[in-house]
Amino acid sequence: MDPVKELLQGNRRALARLISLVENNDPLKEEIMQRLFPHTGKAYLVGVTGAPGAGKSSLVDRLLGEARRSGFTVGVIAVDPTSPFTGGAILGDRIRMQEHALDRGIFIRSMGTRGSLGGLSRAAREAVQVMDAFGKDLIIIETVGVGQSEIDIVKTADSTVVVLTPAGGDSVQTIKAGIMEIGDIFVINKSDLPGSERTVAEVNLALDLKEEPGWRPPVLPVMALRGEGIAELWQKLLEHRRHLEQSGFLESRRRERAESELGELVEFLVKSRVWQNIKTQISLEKLIEAIALRRRDPYGAARELLRQINFPL
Amino acid sequence: MDPVKELLQGNRRALARLISLVENNDPLKEEIMQRLFPHTGKAYLVGVTGAPGAGKSSLVDRLLGEARRSGFTVGVIAVDPTSPFTGGAILGDRIRMQEHALDRGIFIRSMGTRGSLGGLSRAAREAVQVMDAFGKDLIIIETVGVGQSEIDIVKTADSTVVVLTPAGGDSVQTIKAGIMEIGDIFVINKSDLPGSERTVAEVNLALDLKEEPGWRPPVLPVMALRGEGIAELWQKLLEHRRHLEQSGFLESRRRERAESELGELVEFLVKSRVWQNIKTQISLEKLIEAIALRRRDPYGAARELLRQINFPL
Repeated sequence: MDPVKELLQGNRRALARLISLVENNDPLKEEIMQRLFPHTGKAYLVGVTGAPGAGKSSLVDRLLGEARRSGFTVGVIAVDPTSPFTGGAILGDRIRMQEHALDRGIFIRSMGTRGSLGGLSRAAREAVQVMDAFGKDLIIIETVGVGQSEIDIVKTADSTVVVLTPAGGDSVQTIKAGIMEIGDIFVINKSDLPGSERTVAEVNLALDLKEEPGWRPPVLPVMALRGEGIAELWQKLLEHRRHLEQSGFLESRRRERAESELGELVEFLVKSRVWQNIKTQISLEKLIEAIALRRRDPYGAARELLRQINFPL
Repeated sequence: MDPVKELLQGNRRALARLISLVENNDPLKEEIMQRLFPHTGKAYLVGVTGAPGAGKSSLVDRLLGEARRSGFTVGVIAVDPTSPFTGGAILGDRIRMQEHALDRGIFIRSMGTRGSLGGLSRAAREAVQVMDAFGKDLIIIETVGVGQSEIDIVKTADSTVVVLTPAGGDSVQTIKAGIMEIGDIFVINKSDLPGSERTVAEVNLALDLKEEPGWRPPVLPVMALRGEGIAELWQKLLEHRRHLEQSGFLESRRRERAESELGELVEFLVKSRVWQNIKTQISLEKLIEAIALRRRDPYGAARELLRQINFPL
């Protein structure tokens, strides 16, 4: 049967299959995404980001429970851009799935880097759309780290939770890393560790320096492993969603997302086509050799390639 | 006077100016890079990467001293992809420059994210070329973190040093992150900390699992702050360079680099041109609005845009 129809009828196996298809850049992907698109836009998208070891997975697992108790069905996409070579995320995936195996309202999926970072954020965004079309009420995008890659991925979300820990000057580094700008809610996890109150104060101080239109990001001490502070986090998320809706920010965030999505797809289509043309028409070997030997400069060589495929420069 | 000529005559101010020009994507950049290109390819390029706090800057500073004593002139490009919003690197830059202010054989430059990661790795690679044309014998590319971004940047280097610390299970996480594949030399910095020997053993164990053609990456305990182990690191680097030259790997790495450079430039030129055409011919507002309201799907919209500018799909 047609997997898109099956998905729209709530078939979990079709959901898993379509996400794999999207992730593997299957030739059918474009058609599938086009058919799913009218059914998307209903889910609430929450990004959870923070350094490795900050306890994001435990936090998300607890948040799942809280959201389920409120009657939300939940999808999780755990993205790890730091594992480019291994499929290391898979094991953790299975363990996490087992915990929730009996709850058909939960679907968890991990993704590592496939080729490029651009490819990963596109795959993650499209997996979100598949889950959205499936009918998940809440979709959590969990990402490791605090680099540009995470920021790109987090842009997919309506609300973003930044997870910090009191450990060793972490907060200051994170502030330096510009993470303050992307957080709607800050969680100080492992708040039983020494230095927790200082970290809360530091983050609050950094937030005071920002001008915020209508929403002052709360800073919440949490102990994810024991489930403490999770109910508050969930309430703050719902509050932030209301704020986004009422202020019109939800609309403007979604318009920005539409813009960057369109931009990404334009570039993706253009690049695919250009490489296809180059590879069917031209042998690159000699040109690369000439560059390596400094006989040709790369800019000149690139322009010549494009002239040869009649790309209008 | 012409800054390219000045640079080739060894003018440091021209070096600083041309790197800024490259970093800011100045309209003159392409011409400058083309003129500099025949003068590049002589420097030995060393990448230094590792997690924040691993002590990369101290290590690089010590390595500078060692290389200078061997008579090498040195350029450093310190890349921090985790600071996308701030120019935070600049202060550290000045402090580091001051230390070496009297030594005209050293030039240090920091770079944060400018727009996209792709843009950063391109800018870093081009800054390396400017330093190379200037005549630096050794160019060190220092990058924060262990994500895909660093791996892209590290691909610029001939030899790559991965800096780890004994602290809290760091090595295991790094091994998971696939960093083992990119290191030619492993440094366990802060080797006076507890767990140092275990970390050395763990990394060696992980390396034993790899099949390595002709070069077994050494694992060196170092105390960068006290300068201990730095002479050994420098010797190993020189040894690795000899290995690259004698085995032919230097040539094949440089050919790979020429290939990825050509590819990047093709995509850069194509994207620039396509966006220029779209923006001069089409108003995107309505299309974005339609996508945000789910009336148009992004793939269809992207294809229509490309049809409108007569891009041959």
